Amino acid sequence: MNDEKWMEFAFQLAKQAIGQTSPNPLVGAVVVKDGELIGFGAHLKAGEPHAEVHALNMAGEKAKGATLYVTLEPCSHFGKTPPCSELIIKRGIKRVVVAALDPNPLVSGRGVKALQDAGIDVEAGILQKNGHELNKVFFHYIQTNTPFVTLKYAATFDGKIATKTGDSKWITGEEARQDVHRYREIHDGILVGVNTIIKDNPSLTCRLPDRKRTPIRIILDTHLRIPMDANVITDKEAETWVICQDGDLNKKAELKKLGIEVLTLHDQWNIPNILKILGERGITSLFVEGGARVHASFLKAEAVNELIVYFAPKILGDPEGISAVMGDEALKMRMAHSFEIQSVTKIGEDVKIVSVPKRGGQDCLLESLKK
Amino acid sequence: MNDEKWMEFAFQLAKQAIGQTSPNPLVGAVVVKDGELIGFGAHLKAGEPHAEVHALNMAGEKAKGATLYVTLEPCSHFGKTPPCSELIIKRGIKRVVVAALDPNPLVSGRGVKALQDAGIDVEAGILQKNGHELNKVFFHYIQTNTPFVTLKYAATFDGKIATKTGDSKWITGEEARQDVHRYREIHDGILVGVNTIIKDNPSLTCRLPDRKRTPIRIILDTHLRIPMDANVITDKEAETWVICQDGDLNKKAELKKLGIEVLTLHDQWNIPNILKILGERGITSLFVEGGARVHASFLKAEAVNELIVYFAPKILGDPEGISAVMGDEALKMRMAHSFEIQSVTKIGEDVKIVSVPKRGGQDCLLESLKK
Repeated sequence: MNDEKWMEFAFQLAKQAIGQTSPNPLVGAVVVKDGELIGFGAHLKAGEPHAEVHALNMAGEKAKGATLYVTLEPCSHFGKTPPCSELIIKRGIKRVVVAALDPNPLVSGRGVKALQDAGIDVEAGILQKNGHELNKVFFHYIQTNTPFVTLKYAATFDGKIATKTGDSKWITGEEARQDVHRYREIHDGILVGVNTIIKDNPSLTCRLPDRKRTPIRIILDTHLRIPMDANVITDKEAETWVICQDGDLNKKAELKKLGIEVLTLHDQWNIPNILKILGERGITSLFVEGGARVHASFLKAEAVNELIVYFAPKILGDPEGISAVMGDEALKMRMAHSFEIQSVTKIGEDVKIVSVPKRGGQDCLLESLKK
Repeated sequence: MNDEKWMEFAFQLAKQAIGQTSPNPLVGAVVVKDGELIGFGAHLKAGEPHAEVHALNMAGEKAKGATLYVTLEPCSHFGKTPPCSELIIKRGIKRVVVAALDPNPLVSGRGVKALQDAGIDVEAGILQKNGHELNKVFFHYIQTNTPFVTLKYAATFDGKIATKTGDSKWITGEEARQDVHRYREIHDGILVGVNTIIKDNPSLTCRLPDRKRTPIRIILDTHLRIPMDANVITDKEAETWVICQDGDLNKKAELKKLGIEVLTLHDQWNIPNILKILGERGITSLFVEGGARVHASFLKAEAVNELIVYFAPKILGDPEGISAVMGDEALKMRMAHSFEIQSVTKIGEDVKIVSVPKRGGQDCLLESLKK
């Protein structure tokens, strides 16, 4: 079916901009007339033209009477750019095919309605699932005002992320570690607990040679214990935010002088409140990278949207080795946090498993928007 | 290539008898003349005719001038049955194609030589790797006189096989648990430590409805602490052996009266000596199923030939939960036991990973036999 073919091309275009559109969604658009491709575009950066604008510009005069394929419902409101629905109407587009509706319940369906009111034939829901998957981060953020959280760890086959002395270099091989850098690149923030900084002194940067960006490093540090000579404080490789509840005022001032953002949480110290202030500051996606107790806090708060586990074919065999997740006691196996596996792949010498929490409802967000 | 095609058929035949030929290998044979299949057979049970005999019987008079495909070098010595090489010569076979040579260094190549001496054209090494893989248990047993050891466990994503209270029902789903029963069926023995018996009181039987057999249950029980009312003692569902070092003589007598085999290890209590007495008693394959300390002993002794891990998409999150392997302390990550992944598959809602130890040389047994 041609509609799907063109929509798939629009998705391909959208994906090229992964990691560079935050806080905006990934969107691709294609203009077709009499079976011929006459224009295409993608949204490349927040503040810059939407995908439809690029595609319609490429099509020029030919757009009149053409079909526009767009992966996300065209906006009908003034944001940083004028509404796309107006432009689509003005250019004389005859038919619009949309994958996913706008996730914002306040405006969802309005773009479609504006087009329909202008006499344009609109078809929504083509490859809708892809539309949701592509922008799951954006959808989550728009609907919750908190970041989409990906929890990641690399463990041995007996679930250890370090020896009892803290040695963890390296559990997984080169390919898996490269893969982690690809995840870092597409997240707005990387979060670790201050103990990870104290023990491992990581840089937490994206070290891909062709990286689009390296995300903000966010350190959970209740009592502001972060060492002043930590790499994330001194290396200037990326922005660093420290979230604390209390801590020495002089140290706060000193950190600020070094360009470090110190966020003091005045509400109760818990994961939902931490995610709230991150959301307020425009963090749409968060990559949680340790340690074991931070993992446990996020899981307990049901704040994990995606779980990525790299298993290295190794067995440490030491019961005192550091387990991947260290939280409260769990007396029964049925008290375990449950996930549903989305994909299992061999990556180099290791295994990568991507899962989503079994909570129900999570995959149905889009359905509720479809009227 | 037709040689490979017919040899693959011979392998298919051989595999049908999996789990019923121990201590003999799986062998398939095919007789082909002028491109036509004229006979085929497999070795079905120890003491019964070899694959070549069945195949040649089916071929009858036609065997004269034909080609025989056989997955394992034909024997040239009198065992429970007369040497196959003699029969092959007598029936006038013109060409013999062999996948793997006999793994026994004392006789390897002799069957081929006997045939060659009789003027038969012999080709060895076709699909040799399949030949090795198919009979890896037999090859290992013939060369070491100890069982091929498969270590299996089912763990959460944080490497736990039970809660700290011992609850483990269930970690994995139905499909993975069925898979375990398929492994039980094809092993001569299932081994667990006595603590597993005390805590879980398992039946350790193969519960497939169409099972070929249910293996011998072998309990490692240094001081003969096994409860007299344990399922493996009372249920008569399968043979049970208890291996101890010391223990009450009355209890030994009582167990024997119940039909339980009590093996007293007089040598040092370690895994190699335990495998030795199991090998002497005809156990060619051993399925090790727990608990965590038994796993550690086998790994430490480098006695594991294959590792099967089922990961359930669950996180227990309790550092006091029982880790899959509990042995000595390991201060550095490089002290971990290393494996090479052979296959990764999704099985029901879980993941199954099959690995072999990274020791080097293990996969080269056959190469050393090829002159």
